[in-house]
Amino acid sequence: MTTEMTEAEINARHAEKMKKKKAVRDKILASKTVEKGLIIVHTGKGKGKSTAAFGMIFRSLGYGFPVGIVQFVKGSWETGERIALEKFGDLVTINRLGEGFTWETQDRERDIAAARKAWETAKELIKSGACHIVLMDELNIVLRYDYLPVDEVVAFLRDEKPADVHVIITGRNAPEALIEIADLVTEMELVKHPFRSGVKAQKGIEF
Amino acid sequence: MTTEMTEAEINARHAEKMKKKKAVRDKILASKTVEKGLIIVHTGKGKGKSTAAFGMIFRSLGYGFPVGIVQFVKGSWETGERIALEKFGDLVTINRLGEGFTWETQDRERDIAAARKAWETAKELIKSGACHIVLMDELNIVLRYDYLPVDEVVAFLRDEKPADVHVIITGRNAPEALIEIADLVTEMELVKHPFRSGVKAQKGIEF
Repeated sequence: MTTEMTEAEINARHAEKMKKKKAVRDKILASKTVEKGLIIVHTGKGKGKSTAAFGMIFRSLGYGFPVGIVQFVKGSWETGERIALEKFGDLVTINRLGEGFTWETQDRERDIAAARKAWETAKELIKSGACHIVLMDELNIVLRYDYLPVDEVVAFLRDEKPADVHVIITGRNAPEALIEIADLVTEMELVKHPFRSGVKAQKGIEF
Repeated sequence: MTTEMTEAEINARHAEKMKKKKAVRDKILASKTVEKGLIIVHTGKGKGKSTAAFGMIFRSLGYGFPVGIVQFVKGSWETGERIALEKFGDLVTINRLGEGFTWETQDRERDIAAARKAWETAKELIKSGACHIVLMDELNIVLRYDYLPVDEVVAFLRDEKPADVHVIITGRNAPEALIEIADLVTEMELVKHPFRSGVKAQKGIEF
């Protein structure tokens, strides 16, 4: 004997199941009451680390919150973001182009100086308390090359960041000490990449 | 006998190493010549799936490219993005609010009808060729609940998507058949989440 459910039975069972799910969800949400400026890290070998950070930046801009952006590596993002950011005028503070590490030169001293300068800019933006969120794009790369001491960065974020300021740090190979003090860490994992089939970086997609 | 390198030697060695890295990088980039509209999937349990998709949307808008956005689940993003998108006027086409699946009701028939309607909108936007990129936000959720047949979605993207249109599909549990035909798949993995320490969703960060 088959016991196939009628469409009405499927719907009723579904409603019951979803109702339970919603109850669990509501209960979890209600237990979350703390508000604080988060230390957010996007790491991993996959795409989307900086892109998701920019998504958050645009979301904050949508609310009219001021944002700060410090680019530690030149060229990881450029034209598309920059033009879009211009729409929001004074809400956006970006460090000047050319301050970051670049693949185009192989000058370690210059890169260390550039990393230091970008870090000083980031610290100022964070400490000022004027930004809802400060993005330190590709900071992990600079830490990886020891262009800045991890300890210094961690100590600053832990002890000197104003409680209500959010920061996002992107880049592969986030150091353990940074993950330790972070509130929200996401690893972007590469599952499949079009480079493998010879597809080049395209406008609006990769840059 | 110690053989510590001088600062100058470290710099020279570094320059040599980076030069090699750059050569490899340049060679790889030069081999990538294909341009095509990509099928992009953001999946996984971590944050940033929709947010990174919005980052790409804003990047395209920065270039002045028209974009399409279809929301399959209500409330996964809202105010922040919407206000920011308004800055770009006619370049943005969004499906109407309330068409998507929602946790607020437990009405399977309504949700199936809503999924169908959103999918028809998405197909139209994609086929029109008017958009540089079309985001199908949380489509994976709808596929997961079998509100839309995966086969139908896969067949359409494979056979009917114009060659130069990019699409992004987000949501947990991307079905295998979709990953199969995708060009770029990223899995966002949760490493650490502030929910665990009672921090609630905050404006500009989570929504």
